[in-house]
Amino acid sequence: MADSKLSVAMAEETKPDAKTVQVLQDMANRLRIQSIRATCASSSGHPTSCSSAAEIMAVLFFHTMRYKQADPDDPDNDRFILSKRLSFVDVATGWLGQGLGAACGMAYTGKYFDKASYRVFCLLGDGEFSEGSVWEALAFASHYSLDNLVAVFDVNRLGHSGTLPLEHCIDVYQKRCEAFGWNTYVVDGRDVEALCQVFWQAAQVKNKPTAVVAKTFKGRGIPNVEDAENWHGKPMPKERADAIIKLIESQIETNQNLEPKPPIEDSPQITITDIEMTSPPAYKDGDKVSVALGCAIRDRTIAFVSTFAAFLTRAFDQIRVGAISQSNINLIGSHCGVSVGEDGPSQMALEDLAMFRAVPNCTIFYPSDAISTEHAVFLAANTKGMCYIRTSRPETSVIYTAQESFEIGQAKVVRHSVNDKVTVIGAGVTLHEALAAADDLSKQDISVRVIDLFTIKPLDAATIISNAKATGGRIITVEDHYPEGGIGEAVCAAVSMEPDILVHQLAAPGVPQSGKPSELLDMFGVSARHIIVAVKCMLMN
Amino acid sequence: MADSKLSVAMAEETKPDAKTVQVLQDMANRLRIQSIRATCASSSGHPTSCSSAAEIMAVLFFHTMRYKQADPDDPDNDRFILSKRLSFVDVATGWLGQGLGAACGMAYTGKYFDKASYRVFCLLGDGEFSEGSVWEALAFASHYSLDNLVAVFDVNRLGHSGTLPLEHCIDVYQKRCEAFGWNTYVVDGRDVEALCQVFWQAAQVKNKPTAVVAKTFKGRGIPNVEDAENWHGKPMPKERADAIIKLIESQIETNQNLEPKPPIEDSPQITITDIEMTSPPAYKDGDKVSVALGCAIRDRTIAFVSTFAAFLTRAFDQIRVGAISQSNINLIGSHCGVSVGEDGPSQMALEDLAMFRAVPNCTIFYPSDAISTEHAVFLAANTKGMCYIRTSRPETSVIYTAQESFEIGQAKVVRHSVNDKVTVIGAGVTLHEALAAADDLSKQDISVRVIDLFTIKPLDAATIISNAKATGGRIITVEDHYPEGGIGEAVCAAVSMEPDILVHQLAAPGVPQSGKPSELLDMFGVSARHIIVAVKCMLMN
Repeated sequence: MADSKLSVAMAEETKPDAKTVQVLQDMANRLRIQSIRATCASSSGHPTSCSSAAEIMAVLFFHTMRYKQADPDDPDNDRFILSKRLSFVDVATGWLGQGLGAACGMAYTGKYFDKASYRVFCLLGDGEFSEGSVWEALAFASHYSLDNLVAVFDVNRLGHSGTLPLEHCIDVYQKRCEAFGWNTYVVDGRDVEALCQVFWQAAQVKNKPTAVVAKTFKGRGIPNVEDAENWHGKPMPKERADAIIKLIESQIETNQNLEPKPPIEDSPQITITDIEMTSPPAYKDGDKVSVALGCAIRDRTIAFVSTFAAFLTRAFDQIRVGAISQSNINLIGSHCGVSVGEDGPSQMALEDLAMFRAVPNCTIFYPSDAISTEHAVFLAANTKGMCYIRTSRPETSVIYTAQESFEIGQAKVVRHSVNDKVTVIGAGVTLHEALAAADDLSKQDISVRVIDLFTIKPLDAATIISNAKATGGRIITVEDHYPEGGIGEAVCAAVSMEPDILVHQLAAPGVPQSGKPSELLDMFGVSARHIIVAVKCMLMN
Repeated sequence: MADSKLSVAMAEETKPDAKTVQVLQDMANRLRIQSIRATCASSSGHPTSCSSAAEIMAVLFFHTMRYKQADPDDPDNDRFILSKRLSFVDVATGWLGQGLGAACGMAYTGKYFDKASYRVFCLLGDGEFSEGSVWEALAFASHYSLDNLVAVFDVNRLGHSGTLPLEHCIDVYQKRCEAFGWNTYVVDGRDVEALCQVFWQAAQVKNKPTAVVAKTFKGRGIPNVEDAENWHGKPMPKERADAIIKLIESQIETNQNLEPKPPIEDSPQITITDIEMTSPPAYKDGDKVSVALGCAIRDRTIAFVSTFAAFLTRAFDQIRVGAISQSNINLIGSHCGVSVGEDGPSQMALEDLAMFRAVPNCTIFYPSDAISTEHAVFLAANTKGMCYIRTSRPETSVIYTAQESFEIGQAKVVRHSVNDKVTVIGAGVTLHEALAAADDLSKQDISVRVIDLFTIKPLDAATIISNAKATGGRIITVEDHYPEGGIGEAVCAAVSMEPDILVHQLAAPGVPQSGKPSELLDMFGVSARHIIVAVKCMLMN
């Protein structure tokens, strides 16, 4: 009896009855009409790309996915990522190739952290098959056996500028997905019954993610536009829109709506605010930044990404889109600057501050010892929005006591006397060079002030300006970074409306080479010796 | 007779005689010894990664590849890219995942531009299989039928931090390469005879690139190190090195060397200097920056990459490594800033100047009209090193005459009178806003000077400073970019040692939104109206 009930339920999910099929088809056509109307009204948008995926969307949202319509943020809801083009639900993608990585992060969180029943669905365009980040995500998902993840490829053959390399070679799509370890179905993307079936089958497959390769037609249902070139990203001409809408309406047979199934309520309660320093946050290593963006969504985890700072340049596009999505991820970049030493220029991040400073609302920490580094991690975990922590390779001595308190946007004056003639501003290894220079100069009766910025963004302009004024308007900045976009320029900009403050910048002037860290700091102009020369020069003028 | 000669030659290449096999094996062991000696001497390097590939290198360099040993830059030589780890021959890789893209560019150049016989070989580590850029390159090569390209995957199972996801699952490597359309061979990477054979077979296959998946062992030939974890990037302990070298030496049976075969001399003579404006350079579209880096190698082509400026953030790692390699490529980024309009923030590059300014020796053009854009392209084609040209989406009116001459590092004073009170610095769309503001202000009897920077790097500091001094020390910068790392900070840094020059920065303060270009320029603070307010404010203080 229980068995037969189950099989009826299964049969219904696998193979919806004729009436449900018609309602889903009607809903797909209503989505088509809405996309034509909306894009006509705004004179901008993608009605042809929407039309190819209308059946997929109707089946996912009104047959397959389980969620509370009234509460889209409910942690038990199934997740949906629209990777192809339009921003939608949880992550601003609107940028091809990033959605599947984010979906992987959500699926990983669901399977391994939340251990919950919700599934993750990601709709990709076929243009995204050209993006390496999609292949990284495909490899990640099969490696971690993300059987709660379904990727739907909307293969409509046409891209921005004509046909795509693989056109409608559905078998090539299938082979590539299978070679990457995915359970793969090929389906006619116009067939709502087939779509219902594969999404149900996917749920039965253990330890493998599922790819659904859907053969579709761009502009589906629109005469002379369906499967035709030169219609990407173009609204229908206003004079044709009514006739097109009438034609699609004529195929609608019902006016019924379907309710989504409710979610299974088995996600744990999670609070990620007020992280105490005594309980360090759980963190995930790796440089798959899209995955971390996915993990951070809906405040289920505090995601930390850690790698060599230079390698984060590879993720600049993911970081910029993450910032647009107001992502809450934290990135740690180690091995900054020429002080990396023997490994050579490819491994030395000398542009990371320029990169992260140009990310809106990103908080940038640049700690200089073990104590301040621990505080930076703690503050980052508790700070909304993206955080970047820049760390150095050489061992540096501890400067601060365990009792020192740290705040975002608060610089530390670490060396100070009333006779100070110059303010030297450093961070990380160059703070230690500045302190060594100050020691040496004090033996020559030249007293300098030393400031540790701690956060590069926001910058503590008030502390910089008041100390500069107290030291004859003289500032020297010293950084293990290229001159452009780093500490020196940040300080120049901060004092640019202050008359009588001069800034002398010390920074690595060009591509470095391999060598011992201390030799390179000196060779590239940011050692104590160079600071001493710069101080004396500035006092002579 | 000719046939039998051919088959002897074929047989020799396909299946080298026993003596040649022994010499190649001996040369592989000598490479092993050299890598152990060199890394011991420098206390840094990768002897275990070198050891896994020693037979592959011996066969490529002393049996398969055709080149002039005395002239490594000869255009007829076969090309070699060592993508795994070490910088080598033509391109500084030393950065996983970029070598195959560069190799694709060289193979594309060989097949379609030079139409020459030279082949391109690329050695990759198995760790690079995790990099999306490798899958982009694999798809590119099969799409363009690059049958002159051979990629060798050195599958030694071990990476920086233990085993790699696919370990020695050679069949998975094979399936993935085949799914991406490559002719694929699996081979024992220790077997020089087998290696000779597959490299010969690859040359017989038309219209498909060849992948050689070589099963190898890290630290091959070194007792207790071969195939063991925790030996990545570590020289042999000095006290063990002599014994290890003796053991490997004991396996060497000959002291013979092999000469490489001479190249087939069928590359055309190419000169890419002194490009005249009347003959515009050939260019290639697309945003596969690694491929363009490969095309630019050995001065065979003038490579131009053109895409939305925002999309170039995806290629930041390729751009930074290209700069380390002193690549001669030119990048054009269109659709900069909020003036993109309706497409929204994901498509608006507001951080590209920060990114390219932090690339050493990169020349940055920011033309403001059609005339200066044409000059920028012409100058970029003739400039050694990387060039970036930032272009705008809105139509802008022509400012300059056809006779105007342009130089790198030379700003233009486009509005000038003796009574000027403020110097306004713009570029691109903001130059036009500055000119509109100047027109409006002149009606209110306020005269301002307007400067068009033309190149952002190098910056014309002399012109900026002299004009600022002539206008009461007042500068206003206005840019369609975030405040960090762009024009404003470049100007602040340029005048930072000048007392009595103040700089007021106008820039887009945060993540923008969708709208009409002119509305957004105003909403984000960089329109003529904001310039007028800033001028009046500065004059009041």
